[in-house]
Amino acid sequence: MRRTAYEMTSEEEINRFMSEMSYGTLAMQGEEWPYAVPINYVYHRNQVYLHGSKAGHKMEMIRTSGKVAFSVSKEYAIVPSYFSDPKLACPATAYFKSVLIRGQAELVENVEEKAEVLGALMRKLQPEGGYEPIDPADPDYMPRIRGVAVLRLAADSLTAKFAFGQHLNEERFERVCGGLEERGTEGDLQTAELMRKYSGRCPIHEGPAGDGNAS
Amino acid sequence: MRRTAYEMTSEEEINRFMSEMSYGTLAMQGEEWPYAVPINYVYHRNQVYLHGSKAGHKMEMIRTSGKVAFSVSKEYAIVPSYFSDPKLACPATAYFKSVLIRGQAELVENVEEKAEVLGALMRKLQPEGGYEPIDPADPDYMPRIRGVAVLRLAADSLTAKFAFGQHLNEERFERVCGGLEERGTEGDLQTAELMRKYSGRCPIHEGPAGDGNAS
Repeated sequence: MRRTAYEMTSEEEINRFMSEMSYGTLAMQGEEWPYAVPINYVYHRNQVYLHGSKAGHKMEMIRTSGKVAFSVSKEYAIVPSYFSDPKLACPATAYFKSVLIRGQAELVENVEEKAEVLGALMRKLQPEGGYEPIDPADPDYMPRIRGVAVLRLAADSLTAKFAFGQHLNEERFERVCGGLEERGTEGDLQTAELMRKYSGRCPIHEGPAGDGNAS
Repeated sequence: MRRTAYEMTSEEEINRFMSEMSYGTLAMQGEEWPYAVPINYVYHRNQVYLHGSKAGHKMEMIRTSGKVAFSVSKEYAIVPSYFSDPKLACPATAYFKSVLIRGQAELVENVEEKAEVLGALMRKLQPEGGYEPIDPADPDYMPRIRGVAVLRLAADSLTAKFAFGQHLNEERFERVCGGLEERGTEGDLQTAELMRKYSGRCPIHEGPAGDGNAS
C-alpha cells in the first residue's frame, strides 16, 4: 500500500534525477554471492551507460550473467522522531529518491557508438570542457576507445521511489514539514519543498489540503 | 594491480567510514534479476544491521536467498581530465570510498537484541536524542519491536576500496592534488588531504616522496 504513495511515475522527474546524480550502485548475480559496486554512469537516450576496465571482477561477472540491477539513490534528510512524536523513536526515518533499473548489460563494440557514449559521459561529469572531443579518427584517442569497455543497460524495468512523507496524515505531515523548515539547513528546506510538491499539498495552490501555516 | 593500491585494510579507517555514512545499497540474488535498494544501517559490534517492514519485496527475496551484498560508498570529488592532461579526456575520474560486505542476512528474533540494535541505530541517526529509550518492557514499544524486522548481516567477506589517485606517478599526483586545492571547494580540500594521507605522500612528514609544493 505504502509503495503506491511513494512511487514516482513522471518521466520528467525521473530523467532529471538520473541526470543530476553522478553515480549508482551496480548489482550483479554471482554463483555464490551477489556483487555490488559504485560506478559513474550517464543516462543517454533514456538508457544507462557505464564504462570501465575490460579486465577485473565486474566484467568477469557480467560475462557470466549480464542480468544486473542498477540503483541510484540520494538521501535528502534524516527526519527525527520528535518532529512528529514526543515519546516514541519509531517515526524516525529518512527521505530519499531512488531509482532501480533491472536489465541486461550489453557490451558496446562499435567504436563510433563508444566514442559517442564516452562523449556524453564527459559532458555530464565535466560540463566545463577542457579536453579535445573524443573522436575515433584521432590517433591519440583510437587505442583508448578500443581499450575501454562500454556497457549499455538494456532496461527490462525501471521503478522509482521518491519517499517524502506522502503517507503521513495531515497533522504529522505538517509537523515534519514544519520541523524541517525550523531546523532549516539547505537540505531541510529543499526536502520540505519536495514534501509539499510530491504530496500535492502545496500551501499556495491547494487551499483545501492544508492551511499553509507550516510552523 | 590497481586494486592493491586502492585497497584499504585499516580496520580503524573502515569502521570510521561505516560509522559516518547513513545508508548503503543492499543487493540480493533473484530468480531472474538481482535486486538493489538503498537502506539505512548501523554498524554495531563490527556487524551491519538493517531494519524494515516484515512484508514487502526485500524480505520476500531474503527468505528465498539470504545471500546478500551490501555496498556503502561516498564520492568525494570528480576529478577533471585537465588537472593532469591538457588534451585527452581519459584521465577524468572520481575519487571515492567504498566498502563491500558479502554475507548471510539473518533475522534477529530475540526482542532484547532487536531493541538493542534499534537503540544503536537511533543513537547513530538521531544522536541528539529526543525519544524514550527503546525498551521491550515499555508497553508502547513492545508491539512495535515485535512488528519490525531486524536483519543482521553475518559477513563472509569485507573489502574496502579508497580510491584517491594512489596509482598516479608523482607528477600527475601533484597536478591533481594542486588542481583540487586550487578549485578549493570544501570537498576538494578534503579530497586533496585524503590523497596525501592514503598515498603516504605527506608534504610535512615525508620529504623524499614529494617537494611539498602543490602550488
